[in-house]
Amino acid sequence: MAANSAQFPQANDKYVASFGDKGSLALPPARQLIVVTCMDARLDPAAHLGLKEGDAHVIRNAGGAVADALRSIVISQRLLGTREIAIFKHTGCGMLTFTTQQLRDKVVAEQPGDAEVASQVSQIHFHEFPELEGAVKSDVAWLKANPLVLKETTISGWIYEVETGKIRQVV
Amino acid sequence: MAANSAQFPQANDKYVASFGDKGSLALPPARQLIVVTCMDARLDPAAHLGLKEGDAHVIRNAGGAVADALRSIVISQRLLGTREIAIFKHTGCGMLTFTTQQLRDKVVAEQPGDAEVASQVSQIHFHEFPELEGAVKSDVAWLKANPLVLKETTISGWIYEVETGKIRQVV
Repeated sequence: MAANSAQFPQANDKYVASFGDKGSLALPPARQLIVVTCMDARLDPAAHLGLKEGDAHVIRNAGGAVADALRSIVISQRLLGTREIAIFKHTGCGMLTFTTQQLRDKVVAEQPGDAEVASQVSQIHFHEFPELEGAVKSDVAWLKANPLVLKETTISGWIYEVETGKIRQVV
Repeated sequence: MAANSAQFPQANDKYVASFGDKGSLALPPARQLIVVTCMDARLDPAAHLGLKEGDAHVIRNAGGAVADALRSIVISQRLLGTREIAIFKHTGCGMLTFTTQQLRDKVVAEQPGDAEVASQVSQIHFHEFPELEGAVKSDVAWLKANPLVLKETTISGWIYEVETGKIRQVV
């Protein structure tokens, strides 16, 4: 089967054709904003939040976990001047469906007898969560309490609904 | 100053108005694909790669660092069936401009005498890189050698040019 990424160049040609003057955009985000959200395939944060190229740092990982985003947040705030963080989680997230122990067990069962795999996966916390709204509040509180996050940061927490495309602010 | 995120609902209303039937998209990515790329504000990966909602997991962090993406990659592969990873880095990346030690020193200098800050920042490796093409190759090699990444994974490495909007495959 051909690599799926083989389709990138053709799609990219269209983007390049309408690139305009975006080549002159500055490195620091114009809106001094970081968006943290999930890697979920159904999410297009630029589209559903109205972000244009140059506006905001967008950090995405499984679940939109802020603990996993801290390295990037420090770089964004200290070197590139962002002062606001908006955290999104979403309905129907895969992170609501398993526990770290279950996923560790699954990985070990798929590569039985591999001591390196067992050792490495035992060191990963997968940052799943049992409930959506609580997870948003908990991530906002975690950032507010973190000494590496600048005190003057405006922090908000949101939920995106995959069923409707709508967002709503939680905190 | 009003929070910048206060502008989200108005932009979101437009997205919702043309949401169509996207509410029925499945959780697993249709193209069985993960894209790893930088958080840089100038990048809109959905636009410049032609990704539609539902197509691919998109992981973004400072520099598109794969080591920082491993937790998300394991979840994506083991629970949601992805079998291809495309790694992007880009020209003009902030990660080319500093070292971990320099950023640690800067953070400590900004919060002098704070032992908690000094301790926490000393534990973060910022995954900067001195040269672009080498960093792409190195990240591809890291994934290929990692025992937690499935052996049958198709892995490619790319560079996005912020000056032109163009992509090119490195490996």
